Amino acid sequence: MKRVKLIVSYDGTNYCGWQLQQNGVTVEEVLNKTISGLVGEEIAVIGASRTDSGVHALGNVAVFDTNSRIPSEKMSFALNQRLPEDIRIQHSCEVASDWHPRYCDTRKTYEYRILNRKFSVPTERLYSHFFYYPLDIKAMQQAAAYLVGEHDFKSFCSARSQVENTVRTIYFLDVIKEGDMIRIRINGNGFLYNMVRIIVGTLLKVGTGMYPPEHMKEILDAKDRRMAGPKAEAKGLTLMEIEYL
Amino acid sequence: MKRVKLIVSYDGTNYCGWQLQQNGVTVEEVLNKTISGLVGEEIAVIGASRTDSGVHALGNVAVFDTNSRIPSEKMSFALNQRLPEDIRIQHSCEVASDWHPRYCDTRKTYEYRILNRKFSVPTERLYSHFFYYPLDIKAMQQAAAYLVGEHDFKSFCSARSQVENTVRTIYFLDVIKEGDMIRIRINGNGFLYNMVRIIVGTLLKVGTGMYPPEHMKEILDAKDRRMAGPKAEAKGLTLMEIEYL
Repeated sequence: MKRVKLIVSYDGTNYCGWQLQQNGVTVEEVLNKTISGLVGEEIAVIGASRTDSGVHALGNVAVFDTNSRIPSEKMSFALNQRLPEDIRIQHSCEVASDWHPRYCDTRKTYEYRILNRKFSVPTERLYSHFFYYPLDIKAMQQAAAYLVGEHDFKSFCSARSQVENTVRTIYFLDVIKEGDMIRIRINGNGFLYNMVRIIVGTLLKVGTGMYPPEHMKEILDAKDRRMAGPKAEAKGLTLMEIEYL
Repeated sequence: MKRVKLIVSYDGTNYCGWQLQQNGVTVEEVLNKTISGLVGEEIAVIGASRTDSGVHALGNVAVFDTNSRIPSEKMSFALNQRLPEDIRIQHSCEVASDWHPRYCDTRKTYEYRILNRKFSVPTERLYSHFFYYPLDIKAMQQAAAYLVGEHDFKSFCSARSQVENTVRTIYFLDVIKEGDMIRIRINGNGFLYNMVRIIVGTLLKVGTGMYPPEHMKEILDAKDRRMAGPKAEAKGLTLMEIEYL
């Protein structure tokens, strides 16, 4: 028996997120079926990040255990032959049998893309949030700076979440404008439920001038979800990378 | 009666190209139906560029004649409310009643995107050509330089084409690498049938070392379609802009 680690990329458009569920196809389900078909065993992957419905990934991580004689490094090629086009394994390798993708120190990077122009662009529509109103990038960058470092992010956590410790560290939170595409890149040691999308929704309030940049600090200090902006829509978000420390 | 000019962008994935046809939905057909519904007249647009099935556009151009009292500049807003998400009008304005989008001096810009890496990326798959084999960008740039200027591009024209004069001018043909995405940007005063895709298919032969860069000149001089490479797939191609001189 060996444990195989996969780096998994997917277009979340047609999936009800990562995690197995009754109503609709998920990435986890397609992976389980595809790997089971390849190795001839009943496979249940363990994923690192249970991305929400519609969220994309370039570098999510999953492991599974198998007795297959296919070399672990070749699993990526073999699986990509069988997977639908909207899921691709970027890398496969063997890891220690007790290595777990969630119970490790990690740094995750997310990117949220906002298309800021008068009319939407059809070829960008699936992978960005279209936003008509002009955005003040400098104000968004100022507001973002308040979130960098170790903070209690309770205000930026979905009220439905049951997690007790809401302290996390953000290492960087960059707001980058390239033409009419704004990329919000965020890297941290862990993210609460909907945290990135709520941060983005709050930055949009700052960008339109509805909140002054300094208000970000008050929102953080309040530790109250009702103070922050709404969560931004899923399709603008991509899980870029998970680094294991 | 007034003539309204539209700048039209679309995701070509789900269309059988621009031009009306029996077997499948086209961009022209959707525009005709949508504009007719808005203005309450039977509308038939005239398009500048009849893009092939699967090709995308950021700035194709079309005109139509109408008695509608909707201001021409507001047509874009009104149409975008009714159009499917994969077609968007970027601009609308009134033009002279004899202005024709095809019988004018123009410069068109196309972009062809090649994703050059080990495995495909799901979120790029609809708008780029995935190419596994490593590409020599310098060799591609050298080969591309032979095509800039006024030349007879008969070798780069689909043999099915009936056009007599195959002389065209290419103003620039840039091969730009950004990470694992290669953008081929081509600007000229006119393009023969499948010309951009055949040029890209030939540049791919150069990039893999199958043709030396200098071979591009021999292909050009031969004036024979069989000398050039195969046409690259449609989904990598986007009509970026049409400038009217």
